Amino acid sequence: MKLTMLYSFLKADIEEVEKELSQAIHSDTELLKDASLHLLQAGGKRIRPVFVLLAAKTGQYDIHRVKNAAVALELIHMASLVHDDVIDNADMRRGRTTIQAEWNNQIAMYTGDYMFARALNYMTVIQNPSAHKILSDAIVELCIGEIAQIQDKYRFNQSTRDYFRRIKRKTALLIAVSCQLGAVAGNASADIQRRLYRFGYYVGMAYQITDDILDFTSTEKELGKPAGGDLLQGNITLPVFYAMENPEISSRIKKVHEEMPGEDLKQIIDDILKTDAIKRSSAISQRYLRKALDQLDEIPQSKAKKSLRDIALFIGKRKY
Amino acid sequence: MKLTMLYSFLKADIEEVEKELSQAIHSDTELLKDASLHLLQAGGKRIRPVFVLLAAKTGQYDIHRVKNAAVALELIHMASLVHDDVIDNADMRRGRTTIQAEWNNQIAMYTGDYMFARALNYMTVIQNPSAHKILSDAIVELCIGEIAQIQDKYRFNQSTRDYFRRIKRKTALLIAVSCQLGAVAGNASADIQRRLYRFGYYVGMAYQITDDILDFTSTEKELGKPAGGDLLQGNITLPVFYAMENPEISSRIKKVHEEMPGEDLKQIIDDILKTDAIKRSSAISQRYLRKALDQLDEIPQSKAKKSLRDIALFIGKRKY
Repeated sequence: MKLTMLYSFLKADIEEVEKELSQAIHSDTELLKDASLHLLQAGGKRIRPVFVLLAAKTGQYDIHRVKNAAVALELIHMASLVHDDVIDNADMRRGRTTIQAEWNNQIAMYTGDYMFARALNYMTVIQNPSAHKILSDAIVELCIGEIAQIQDKYRFNQSTRDYFRRIKRKTALLIAVSCQLGAVAGNASADIQRRLYRFGYYVGMAYQITDDILDFTSTEKELGKPAGGDLLQGNITLPVFYAMENPEISSRIKKVHEEMPGEDLKQIIDDILKTDAIKRSSAISQRYLRKALDQLDEIPQSKAKKSLRDIALFIGKRKY
Repeated sequence: MKLTMLYSFLKADIEEVEKELSQAIHSDTELLKDASLHLLQAGGKRIRPVFVLLAAKTGQYDIHRVKNAAVALELIHMASLVHDDVIDNADMRRGRTTIQAEWNNQIAMYTGDYMFARALNYMTVIQNPSAHKILSDAIVELCIGEIAQIQDKYRFNQSTRDYFRRIKRKTALLIAVSCQLGAVAGNASADIQRRLYRFGYYVGMAYQITDDILDFTSTEKELGKPAGGDLLQGNITLPVFYAMENPEISSRIKKVHEEMPGEDLKQIIDDILKTDAIKRSSAISQRYLRKALDQLDEIPQSKAKKSLRDIALFIGKRKY
């Protein structure tokens, strides 16, 4: 089962968004175009545009209007990825070299800025003042989340509360806003806008927790980067908190540092996998997914609603 | 004569903007607050907010409304400075250590992103859809200008056309947009909006050319950073183009590289100062200023108009 099958009726519209994305990052400045295209062509699930379109379907759907919000959300996501890779000093992303590996940190920074600005450009087509407020509030939180993540690196005495707040800012809010702005672009009722926001938020939380689980349970081939990379970077995710309840494993985890040899890291990953950390993390993820599905209850039946439900369920089961 | 004396009747309103700026960058995230405050407290001319307020005075002036645009423009300017310092690997800015020197590149990048996002936040208070389009278009150009500047570094065979396009994107557009958005926030007529945009554009061009001249003619104490820094970084400014018309000086300039000893650089600066490069650059700057003043002709007499005129004249004479 592939994710794209869950919204196959949107195929033509997703292609429209994809075409618009290429146009969005087109620039006469060769270097900028190359760097942006490099990232765009690496692909990605385009899950934010999908949420925008599906949410818009709950109102008056006009692809020529709503695609602008879809492009904006994907560009902001891509901009944040580019800036993330600078922070993480990442060489690979989605199985390809990163912009900062291919060019350098400076180019990566401005390419991110450029994508970010182009996103705002696209949002102006949705002539709705609250849309800008929603989006800029989310971006502010996104930045705070990024800084918090830097501050929290290798800080092993933090709490799961720090973790949940971090993934809310880093991931869940932008998915929440994707759903909300889709509903706004489709002129759906305020009630539906709110429900879809919460749906996106819960799905986003579940999505990120799953991502953090997969960083331990997937192979390098599946991830497009080495397993355990988050931990190696000092990014303490949900399974780590649970595994650290075991004092022995905790003391070993606390020794993790960026230059740790791959074999030592592998040993620690094996330790974590032997605990109930993955199972408990999955249970939390499932709880968020149930909350997400609850939000859909009061929304009228439709193909789009079914897709939103199926995607949530899919995220609960995804293996990579 | 101090610049601030030219708009002393705005003193209370500028203080209001300054207060709002502090609030704008307030964050519960300690690191983010510290980094942003570090830059804010370094001061600066706040010339963009001044242009916003003065332009708004040509319409219906309401400080509680227009201050949001003023804060937004200054934040975008500050964000671009932070990102600039990362590119330039600058240690000093406005006589203080830079964020990237005090913390690191990553913090500087996200602090810039954060200020940028907060700026958008503030713009949403001006409920005018075209305001967002004006601003995001300018930011896109700003990013393209930044990337172009990286590409053009140490590229000694570029033309003055490249230079003018670069400073348009890097400096003039944001000042043009400051004037334009001030007029928009004050609901001034479309004609006045256009005239003030052009006024800002021409002033911005003159301002940047003067800045580029001062990089050669000022002392380290006046600049808050070593003289000739632009050239050392490979940033080819207007006086350099003119000086390079002398083949001997040209061949010496072409040897400039980032690690060049200070004494060698000083020799090259002296060479440039011996040519007519500064005089010719000043003449171009003056020509832009005259064009700026022409734009004010059709705008009704007022204190604000007098200030705009005086500031333009001041920029033509400024020594640091």
